[in-house]
Amino acid sequence: MVLDPPLPRPMVGRLAVIGLGLIGSSILRVAEARRLAEVGVAYDATPAVRARVAELGIADEVAATPAEAVRDADIVILCVPVGAMGAVAQDIAAHLKPGAIVSDVGSVKGAVLSALSAHLPAGVHIVPAHPVAGTEYSGPDAGFATLFKNRWCILTPPEGAEAGAVSALSALWTAMGANVETMTAEHHDLVLAITSHVPHLIAYNIVGTAADLEKVTSSEVIKYSAGGFRDFTRIAASDPTMWRDVFLNNREAVIEVLGRFTEDLIALQRAIRWEQGEALFDLFTRTRAIRCSIIEIGQETAAPDFGRERG
Amino acid sequence: MVLDPPLPRPMVGRLAVIGLGLIGSSILRVAEARRLAEVGVAYDATPAVRARVAELGIADEVAATPAEAVRDADIVILCVPVGAMGAVAQDIAAHLKPGAIVSDVGSVKGAVLSALSAHLPAGVHIVPAHPVAGTEYSGPDAGFATLFKNRWCILTPPEGAEAGAVSALSALWTAMGANVETMTAEHHDLVLAITSHVPHLIAYNIVGTAADLEKVTSSEVIKYSAGGFRDFTRIAASDPTMWRDVFLNNREAVIEVLGRFTEDLIALQRAIRWEQGEALFDLFTRTRAIRCSIIEIGQETAAPDFGRERG
Ligand SMILES: NC(=O)c1ccc[n+]([C@@H]2O[C@H](COP(=O)([O-])OP(=O)(O)OC[C@H]3O[C@@H](n4cnc5c(N)ncnc54)[C@H](OP(=O)(O)O)[C@@H]3O)[C@@H](O)[C@H]2O)c1
Ligand SMILES: NC(=O)c1ccc[n+]([C@@H]2O[C@H](COP(=O)([O-])OP(=O)(O)OC[C@H]3O[C@@H](n4cnc5c(N)ncnc54)[C@H](OP(=O)(O)O)[C@@H]3O)[C@@H](O)[C@H]2O)c1
Repeated sequence: MVLDPPLPRPMVGRLAVIGLGLIGSSILRVAEARRLAEVGVAYDATPAVRARVAELGIADEVAATPAEAVRDADIVILCVPVGAMGAVAQDIAAHLKPGAIVSDVGSVKGAVLSALSAHLPAGVHIVPAHPVAGTEYSGPDAGFATLFKNRWCILTPPEGAEAGAVSALSALWTAMGANVETMTAEHHDLVLAITSHVPHLIAYNIVGTAADLEKVTSSEVIKYSAGGFRDFTRIAASDPTMWRDVFLNNREAVIEVLGRFTEDLIALQRAIRWEQGEALFDLFTRTRAIRCSIIEIGQETAAPDFGRERG
Repeated sequence: MVLDPPLPRPMVGRLAVIGLGLIGSSILRVAEARRLAEVGVAYDATPAVRARVAELGIADEVAATPAEAVRDADIVILCVPVGAMGAVAQDIAAHLKPGAIVSDVGSVKGAVLSALSAHLPAGVHIVPAHPVAGTEYSGPDAGFATLFKNRWCILTPPEGAEAGAVSALSALWTAMGANVETMTAEHHDLVLAITSHVPHLIAYNIVGTAADLEKVTSSEVIKYSAGGFRDFTRIAASDPTMWRDVFLNNREAVIEVLGRFTEDLIALQRAIRWEQGEALFDLFTRTRAIRCSIIEIGQETAAPDFGRERG
């Protein structure tokens, strides 16, 4: 995966990134590598993380406080867990330059928009965003400059958002390699519930179920995990804080999708109990077709010994 | 992944493989590459598959009938879907050499043992086995010689099985690169229900749920699948016939584990509804530890941008 060359001149003056984990540090890396901002400023609540980012040299300035980080910034991107967005908005509210764009990368959009709107002053542009890209790792060392390349970034500007602010943020994400889409926060939260949040919940759940079985030991589960379980454990290794916040902040959509999932699962269980082989076969054939579509649109590879390579 | 060098002399005289898909063709490939048998004989019910195997040159003989395939064979391995084991046993029963070892690779062991025992004559040794290795692909072109390398192969010899037959089969699997374990068919079926069968069922189920949502289009699901859903679609792309047979033939264990899964999921849903963040955080921390154990025992890699590479 190669990065495009640096821009002839930066598209942003001061770019402030708050929260320097997987996502925040990846933004800094690509901004630095492609020279997207005149000055990249970094801040994280944890001193050790700030020190690490200074050491990595991926920001022009590492600020000691949120206030200092956002001073004179043209674009501020909050890359903290969803549950911390409100507190950070409160910290920075009084120090933002009028006309600044405040965005975020939170995996939930409705709750974040409410949290930001509650604290930020009139005169700054709130344009929430969510890059649909990630790994199960976290922290500043987990980031990399190509994380967003060929990935989607969904903007959820509130009604009445200024077109200029939306297009400036859109241009920035495009320059970071992402394909930008726009939708309402509400629709985003439902789409992500099915494509990301409920799959994570299910993965966490089955790994938990496995650990609690009495008749099968944990060491057996681990030993024979290559049969399919292994893939779930990777998903279920994602950051606990981030995911706790996702579920607490996207409750309605998650519970709605989960209801459908459970209903379907009970029907499937019934088909097994009553040996309805045809119903099983039909579902399994249908789901296979969806996989083919994903491969076709290039979000995945179909390399034949792919499952193997990962072992 | 490299294969060990060929043996100085073959450990099996005639090795017959019936069913030439992913698993059967992989057995032929490694047997050929490591010279494990004097003669490797292949048979599949589908003429096109037989022709393809002849073309690939991975068997010394491609038989035209099951009877011809097993004639004088020392070891016969059935690599057909679990639901077809009984029919194949019936086809070959009258043609087996006395003292022959009949084994299989089915993903379910209790039902296969019953099916084989019902049809095979006294004087042949039934030693069921299950290599815990696979991909979501099927057919003779999907196989490869290193499929079993460093993977587990579980033998489930029935009570009273002859020790010599068990150790001959064990030696063959070891030579194919696998680590051999022995357990009862009943325990196997429960262990695999949690490590493989229920994970597959859940993956099939959520992909089906996603396809049926009215408020989110299929193209949105596919587009934003990088958030976690994509991993499920890979699992849910596995062969429909094979998996239908697995669920029909391991009903009790699958329903037992599924019951636990659903119970846990409902508790988790309740924790979300009542905003019990700590309960979520605790589970998510516990599941992360299981992932670490799997990486430690070398069944998986922890390469930092691993999730990314796959995109
Ligand atoms: N990981 C993904 O796959 C992914 C994908 C798309 C979007 N997202 C979203 O991106 C955001 C960040 O996720 P991430 O994976 O980058 O997390 P991460 O690696 O854990 O990084 C988050 C960083 O924010 C810091 N932080 C927490 N509270 C803070 C505060 N009040 N002020 C300043 N810094 C604070 C954390 O410090 P401490 O850890 O020391 O508290 C940590 O260094 C989340 O909202 C998440 O939903 C994640
Ligand atoms: N795939 C995995 O991940 C995996 C892992 C471990 C164990 N297993 C087990 O291995 C076995 C084979 O799986 P696979 O993935 O190799 O399947 P596969 O690629 O679909 O191959 C099965 C082959 O058997 C043929 N066949 C079906 N009925 C037959 C019969 N009565 N006589 C002769 N040939 C017949 C099939 O022909 P048609 O398709 O033309 O009918 C097909 O060519 C199954 O029991 C499965 O549970 C699979």
